[in-house]
Amino acid sequence: MALTRRALLASAGAGGLAVAAGGGYALGRDDDDDGTPAAAEQVVPFHGRHQAGIATPAQDRLHFAAFDVEEGLRADDLRGLLQEWSKAAERLTAGRPVGPANDVPLAPPQDTGEAMGLTAARLTVTFGLGPSLFDDRFGLAASKPAPLRNLPPLPGDELDPERSGGDLCVQACADDPQVAFHAVRNLARIGRGAVTVRWSQLGFGRTSSTSRAQATPRNLMGFKDGTRNLKAEDTDALARHVWVRGDRAGEPAWLRDGTYLVARRIRMLIEVWDRASLGDQEDTIGRQKSSGAPIGGREEFDPVRFDRLPVDSHVRLAAPESNGGASLLRRGYSFTDGLDDRLGQLDAGLFFLSFQRDTEAFVSVQRRLGASDKLNEYIKHVGSGVWAVPPGAQRGGWVGETLLGARRR
Amino acid sequence: MALTRRALLASAGAGGLAVAAGGGYALGRDDDDDGTPAAAEQVVPFHGRHQAGIATPAQDRLHFAAFDVEEGLRADDLRGLLQEWSKAAERLTAGRPVGPANDVPLAPPQDTGEAMGLTAARLTVTFGLGPSLFDDRFGLAASKPAPLRNLPPLPGDELDPERSGGDLCVQACADDPQVAFHAVRNLARIGRGAVTVRWSQLGFGRTSSTSRAQATPRNLMGFKDGTRNLKAEDTDALARHVWVRGDRAGEPAWLRDGTYLVARRIRMLIEVWDRASLGDQEDTIGRQKSSGAPIGGREEFDPVRFDRLPVDSHVRLAAPESNGGASLLRRGYSFTDGLDDRLGQLDAGLFFLSFQRDTEAFVSVQRRLGASDKLNEYIKHVGSGVWAVPPGAQRGGWVGETLLGARRR
Repeated sequence: MALTRRALLASAGAGGLAVAAGGGYALGRDDDDDGTPAAAEQVVPFHGRHQAGIATPAQDRLHFAAFDVEEGLRADDLRGLLQEWSKAAERLTAGRPVGPANDVPLAPPQDTGEAMGLTAARLTVTFGLGPSLFDDRFGLAASKPAPLRNLPPLPGDELDPERSGGDLCVQACADDPQVAFHAVRNLARIGRGAVTVRWSQLGFGRTSSTSRAQATPRNLMGFKDGTRNLKAEDTDALARHVWVRGDRAGEPAWLRDGTYLVARRIRMLIEVWDRASLGDQEDTIGRQKSSGAPIGGREEFDPVRFDRLPVDSHVRLAAPESNGGASLLRRGYSFTDGLDDRLGQLDAGLFFLSFQRDTEAFVSVQRRLGASDKLNEYIKHVGSGVWAVPPGAQRGGWVGETLLGARRR
Repeated sequence: MALTRRALLASAGAGGLAVAAGGGYALGRDDDDDGTPAAAEQVVPFHGRHQAGIATPAQDRLHFAAFDVEEGLRADDLRGLLQEWSKAAERLTAGRPVGPANDVPLAPPQDTGEAMGLTAARLTVTFGLGPSLFDDRFGLAASKPAPLRNLPPLPGDELDPERSGGDLCVQACADDPQVAFHAVRNLARIGRGAVTVRWSQLGFGRTSSTSRAQATPRNLMGFKDGTRNLKAEDTDALARHVWVRGDRAGEPAWLRDGTYLVARRIRMLIEVWDRASLGDQEDTIGRQKSSGAPIGGREEFDPVRFDRLPVDSHVRLAAPESNGGASLLRRGYSFTDGLDDRLGQLDAGLFFLSFQRDTEAFVSVQRRLGASDKLNEYIKHVGSGVWAVPPGAQRGGWVGETLLGARRR
């Protein structure tokens, strides 16, 4: 006999949806477990002023999922879900199972088990709230910040709606892909009955450094990516460009110390790129391929001499210097999803993720890129999403509490 | 101007297909390069009696690709391709670029570059020849070994032809997914004009140990997998069960020290599995989830007491003791490919790979499993392939030479 988790929870007396019970693991024993705490250096703390996974030095692997809320869910249910998710994320990021791994033979295991014996692998779980969550379903319309809106149509967009949007998102990053997968899977499982996965994306290799301690990785075009990215050490720049401080018009108090996440699935036309000459490739990017030095420079971190770069080169057009100082914290990953059914070509590219204080920062840069970037010959944007990323939770609290918690208590 | 590689090669005077030139990188300079040799301990030698990637301790990540030969290719072209591929694999597995990374500005870079700066990450590249290669196109029909045939319909098959078969296959395994991706991408690029990718599969976590030095990993059902697998240290067992020795009827000399590869894309019905009780899960597998011990035992490697296991448990039905001693070297990987469009459920599971001296070993075990395995409630086989895996190449030689080389010289 296979009891379903929902049946179990219902039989435990929780009214309504399972997640509304606020205690999904109350199966008759405490949720202390048999999991060995992971090595401390592998653990990124879940609690803090900001959510982890933003200024955290970028981990090697990504599992990202966008969720839609199921019909009929109430604000209480949504609150219950976010509480459960925070509780689970706290455990998962500590390298512990989401619930006791080995519990009652007649009940489904509370943790799916595939991360047993692995370290925490620097797992971070970052939650975001999409524009659609602020419609009339949960009474959140009045709290919707102005920058939280679907991105306007941008030049060169070929967006697939099935890979775009989502009421909620979860970004799980870890140095071990099985740990990231395990996190998303168990969060999806906890959310069953309340949310369904709308789309998901694996990223197999980071394409940005977010710390000066990290080497700059290469993207699938073979170029170093993110040389001039904001870094965790640049706390002043992060305060200016990434964190919502609540002191600008339109910055709601509930989002203070939070930020906005933009995701773009950027398909690279690998076969076309691979046939471009080295000179063309370097002119397109504005950097030298091997060293990563800007054109006209010798070393990767040499100052960029913009007058030396082709006017339509990517580095020149994307630079803060060309965009009124607009700066993003990029945190993207390379992906490959096998073959494109339609074209029989490699479906691979960059799953671009950026965090910024205002989505307009992304929009203005992307408008410029979409209109003029030489790189457009080799890429297309096929998925898109934007989410507000609430501040971090304090111990005993939960992500989303600043928005959804107050009216309850 | 973007010169194509093929155009360049053609202009270099190679008649016919690019790959037939036998010197795809002859762009006017030696193929010594600017790549730093990788740390020696990260290098698995390409040359040897057997191909690497079989008895090699299983690396963490996989990129697998099945290729079809393009219409009109001649035996000479096929020979040229395999020679080029071997040469490239030798370089790639040594942690070197497939050709000079930074060459002529007017030519496309010979290496796509995304592995620059990474180690060899224990990369292995293993080549296989599919049954369809032995039709009348290349004059190989008389050399076709009897066990090299598409697997017969097996109980429970729901095969997708677009994820099955292939004239050739390449298994790239590495501890870094970007290194494995880079290898397949560059081999596909070298093969352009001669072969096209039929399907490909990423595996994000190994699900088998193939060495006693490795811990047993967990599959996506959360169970330790491959506890009783053949190990690299079991050289006698490998000689009996894996390597073709040429001393049995039907074992052709060209395949001596080679083997057969079976691939099965096994989709797990994750959502159904996750709702099964712990007791059901353990009865289904025949092991305890947390410890990995066989039912009735205490430790993972305790002897299996078959009389204690449910008659329809997976471990009992799959064991050599239940199959006339038939034994496979398993080398599979967990995969997840986002959502299943049709069902909206997680498309995840096990990309099963096994090496065996005779495909019949796999067929007989799978017939038994397909008919009775309790696990069938939770899985379906959706892709399938079989390839002959030639012996390893000697220095200066190439994989496939034992089949295709002799008639040339």
